[in-house]
Amino acid sequence: MGPIDEILQPGITETVVTTLSIDGKPNAAPMGIVRQNDSLYIRMFPGSNTFRNVSGTGKLVINIVDDPVVFVCSAFRDLDESYYVPQPGMPPLITGVYAWVYCEARVEGTVRLTPVKSEIVRRRVPRFSRGFAAVIDAAVTGTRLKFLGEEGKKKIREDAVLVEKCGTPADKEAMRRLKEILDI
Amino acid sequence: MGPIDEILQPGITETVVTTLSIDGKPNAAPMGIVRQNDSLYIRMFPGSNTFRNVSGTGKLVINIVDDPVVFVCSAFRDLDESYYVPQPGMPPLITGVYAWVYCEARVEGTVRLTPVKSEIVRRRVPRFSRGFAAVIDAAVTGTRLKFLGEEGKKKIREDAVLVEKCGTPADKEAMRRLKEILDI
Repeated sequence: MGPIDEILQPGITETVVTTLSIDGKPNAAPMGIVRQNDSLYIRMFPGSNTFRNVSGTGKLVINIVDDPVVFVCSAFRDLDESYYVPQPGMPPLITGVYAWVYCEARVEGTVRLTPVKSEIVRRRVPRFSRGFAAVIDAAVTGTRLKFLGEEGKKKIREDAVLVEKCGTPADKEAMRRLKEILDI
Repeated sequence: MGPIDEILQPGITETVVTTLSIDGKPNAAPMGIVRQNDSLYIRMFPGSNTFRNVSGTGKLVINIVDDPVVFVCSAFRDLDESYYVPQPGMPPLITGVYAWVYCEARVEGTVRLTPVKSEIVRRRVPRFSRGFAAVIDAAVTGTRLKFLGEEGKKKIREDAVLVEKCGTPADKEAMRRLKEILDI
């Protein structure tokens, strides 16, 4: 699959997916892209804006970003306009994207993806922070909070401790916003 | 600090540190590198081989790697010789390293680091996997298992579920080895 081998690993890659509504309004949301052999799909919550947009337009863009604030904010709110870089004939990219994959998307239980076009914009040293990982973990837990209840809030507070200990200033800012959004 | 800004982020970066014993035997162990403003240090367990080597030689190399098997194996066992790339006048690099920082190391409560030489060897798209993060988390928990007991084993089993769901084949292999080493 060419550059896609470097962009999407086997298993699940955490990305931010951009879509357009039928009347052209951009949306972004964190989505795990499942890669099994050469098949790509997303297990998508049917009530989401992304699901509605994909059902209507059949298109989405997978964005590889490393800004924890983008993951947190796009999970719960509309991203600020300044985060979108409009593209001709496809959904927008996210500002600062490392790589992207524009896909045709078919809803068949899961959302099946067929890559149409992709690009690696830039690369970096793959340094790993448990602080960033804790932000992603907390954001995932946050989207399931109505099912997880107090247990979920406890998990987010534990992640917040890890972010304070290991995180970058951006990780700390993302966690601050997450707790504000979730009122934790 | 030049390339170090790309290699070591503020907060804690999870790396594999290589050292040599006084008689020249290589050692590797996962270590979180703390960066606070322009100061670099490691909170190191005084009983470890790394601590003994650093106390004896005053030198170490920080390796940025993304192979989960290297993190797991070096945490508990001697790495196989084939993982080391010998270097003149400094501890070896780890095979496949993305970037490294050779440091002078002073034991003063924590281990204070002064970078001497560094190199970015290659870069990649910073795709993020919760599977890889779960392996690192489980390895950290594993090194503290004698303090954490059954609670720690439960945490590792939860990480193992995440690795099965999100991980690459390498993440799954690393978790298999971790559970084997810890007899979980």
